[in-house]
Amino acid sequence: MKILVLNAGSSSVKFQLFNMQDNSVLASGLIEQISEPMSRIRMKYQDSTGIEQVVEQTLPISDHHDALRKMSALLIESGVIHNLNELDGIGHRVVQGGASFQAPAMVDEYVMSEIERLIPLAPLHNPGHLSGMKVSVEQSPSVPQVAIFDTAFHSTLPKYAYMYALPYKYYDELKIRRYGFHGTSHRYVVKEAARYLKQDIHTLNAITLHLGNGASVAAIENGKSVDTSMGLTPLEGLVMGTRSGDIDPAILFYLARKRGLTLDELDHMLNKESGLKGICGSNDMREISRLAHEGNEQAQLARDMFNYRLKKYIGAYSAVLGRVDCIVFTGGIGENDSETRKESCSRLENLGIKIDAERNALRSSGIMQISTDDSAVKVLVIPTNEELEIAVETMEMIEKHC
Amino acid sequence: MKILVLNAGSSSVKFQLFNMQDNSVLASGLIEQISEPMSRIRMKYQDSTGIEQVVEQTLPISDHHDALRKMSALLIESGVIHNLNELDGIGHRVVQGGASFQAPAMVDEYVMSEIERLIPLAPLHNPGHLSGMKVSVEQSPSVPQVAIFDTAFHSTLPKYAYMYALPYKYYDELKIRRYGFHGTSHRYVVKEAARYLKQDIHTLNAITLHLGNGASVAAIENGKSVDTSMGLTPLEGLVMGTRSGDIDPAILFYLARKRGLTLDELDHMLNKESGLKGICGSNDMREISRLAHEGNEQAQLARDMFNYRLKKYIGAYSAVLGRVDCIVFTGGIGENDSETRKESCSRLENLGIKIDAERNALRSSGIMQISTDDSAVKVLVIPTNEELEIAVETMEMIEKHC
Repeated sequence: MKILVLNAGSSSVKFQLFNMQDNSVLASGLIEQISEPMSRIRMKYQDSTGIEQVVEQTLPISDHHDALRKMSALLIESGVIHNLNELDGIGHRVVQGGASFQAPAMVDEYVMSEIERLIPLAPLHNPGHLSGMKVSVEQSPSVPQVAIFDTAFHSTLPKYAYMYALPYKYYDELKIRRYGFHGTSHRYVVKEAARYLKQDIHTLNAITLHLGNGASVAAIENGKSVDTSMGLTPLEGLVMGTRSGDIDPAILFYLARKRGLTLDELDHMLNKESGLKGICGSNDMREISRLAHEGNEQAQLARDMFNYRLKKYIGAYSAVLGRVDCIVFTGGIGENDSETRKESCSRLENLGIKIDAERNALRSSGIMQISTDDSAVKVLVIPTNEELEIAVETMEMIEKHC
Repeated sequence: MKILVLNAGSSSVKFQLFNMQDNSVLASGLIEQISEPMSRIRMKYQDSTGIEQVVEQTLPISDHHDALRKMSALLIESGVIHNLNELDGIGHRVVQGGASFQAPAMVDEYVMSEIERLIPLAPLHNPGHLSGMKVSVEQSPSVPQVAIFDTAFHSTLPKYAYMYALPYKYYDELKIRRYGFHGTSHRYVVKEAARYLKQDIHTLNAITLHLGNGASVAAIENGKSVDTSMGLTPLEGLVMGTRSGDIDPAILFYLARKRGLTLDELDHMLNKESGLKGICGSNDMREISRLAHEGNEQAQLARDMFNYRLKKYIGAYSAVLGRVDCIVFTGGIGENDSETRKESCSRLENLGIKIDAERNALRSSGIMQISTDDSAVKVLVIPTNEELEIAVETMEMIEKHC
């Protein structure tokens, strides 16, 4: 069974083709700068002898239609597939599924119209997803296509956790509530954790930390998400690469009055100029780490704030869950930054969390347990794989419906 | 030694006169609706035979000058004092001391100019404080006067806890940071907790929950505040009577775009129309509790959200402190609402917190321990007394400086 995973942004398309027999990647690629004078396409694939090949091209690609046609051509030219009908399914990543989608959905006119209706809740993401989806349906009308929502895993939050303490009419009329994101990643790593710990996922309580340029935490009770740090949008919660995470909302009123900033400028500032970048000028945690080691105080401050916010969420979700079986670090920073893991879990013996310094310092491309043997809470590092999770959910959906 | 405590708002003055030999209250009162067509004044005092008397008057009071003259006249007419020079000191409550004041300050021209300079950070509070202070200095030039700041107790927060992940220049240029409030109450109850537990305050780790119409939590390490839930302004943190507390700041952008709300309208909405009132229409926790017991779902939701947010802060600050000796509930809700105490501390055995249901159901005007004997974390109910704390700090300041 061959499943193609598409993640279409406003000016980019990421794709990955899986052989679901062994979850192996047959090809993966990225098309960037769509509709700019020059676009770029890069694809890795295994040739017929099993050797990894890379194709890179710079050429004008005018729109998503053009991009998907180019992708198909490359997949066929490289011999990975013979034609698009060979695909058993296509899974589309969609960031915002709102209250409409609590699970994957077979793509049809209604689903696409709902994704369009949700654009105001994800203006940077849903339009690109929708363009990619429409073109893909046009190009491969006979291949079943599935929409996989970043928000769906968090649809199990109880109402007291997803409601904001705002006038109730804004929930009733505008559906303003916590949705949460990164659901595909949180779901993937908690399934992996259950497998690794040999525990039934339906009894597993976990705190999963997806730490990349965007970052979020989820509290997972009996395998289900019961709280998460991102909210109506991906701005809330942790300190991120360029996003502020939690702040006193009154700061916006103060800044508007003192500096005459407009709402659009404030929006841009909180989403693009804040977070690690705002504090120390860089949003690359490896560079920040290097600067901090060289004695740069603002880089050290950025790291301290990042880790301190993490620690507070670990505490908050320990209280939410009552019993925590494991904590999972994932995402670029979670998988690679041992110091962040050490600092955010330091002095948490009162919560049953003890990190083993030696284990934590190891590097591995697989799952690592970095807690001590007597730590009540197991602390794991699990590489995430959102594309594979989308492929698996797409396959399950197709098997159920087709 | 007689200390008068003044809490001057924009249209009100609260006052309390202490005999510091035994911390007894000689008189206390409230002047309201200053500068409205009709103002109200109410004062309780002990007459010369020790019997409590109440004076109530409705009359026009044009400004703070008029209000303090009226207060003095009542104190003298009632025989509580013979003249203002009998006072050994006057303590003024000031909400926002910014980065300027990390401790009480003897009132002088410089201090008043700083309080004025901080008005943009506390537009609803500092102007009233300043008016009251100026008039009081005019009326009693020979009585030492002290400013006591709600923010001062939180001046010990480490930088990684008080910084927001915003562009650094806003800290440098505008001093945008977490200040925290209710400091006088948090300080008072943690001192009382140390006394009750017979533990040196300099080794005491506590989580103090001040739950009134405004509400905040503080993490206290070795007697010093190291984190608190209110931020640049008193809007951040817990669900409050009419304030939202923590939200996704991007909600403001969404509401502005969807509903055309201006910044002033959003400010009003978050501060005056949100919180418990926003969810269920009432900001009176006793009424909400009654409605919830009658089956009103939104009232129950408001309570659940309030308690859930509390629980998350208890968890977060347990992580911050590493070791928690005690949790203290105070303020109108904290002292009286046993169900809130029960719910917010439920299922927290993993944090060493166990509430004794029978002890928690008791009512007392004094300090109560409501945790079980084997609870690692002692949970206490301690009635706060901000006025007394201001009087004590005023006295200490005067003894040091005069």
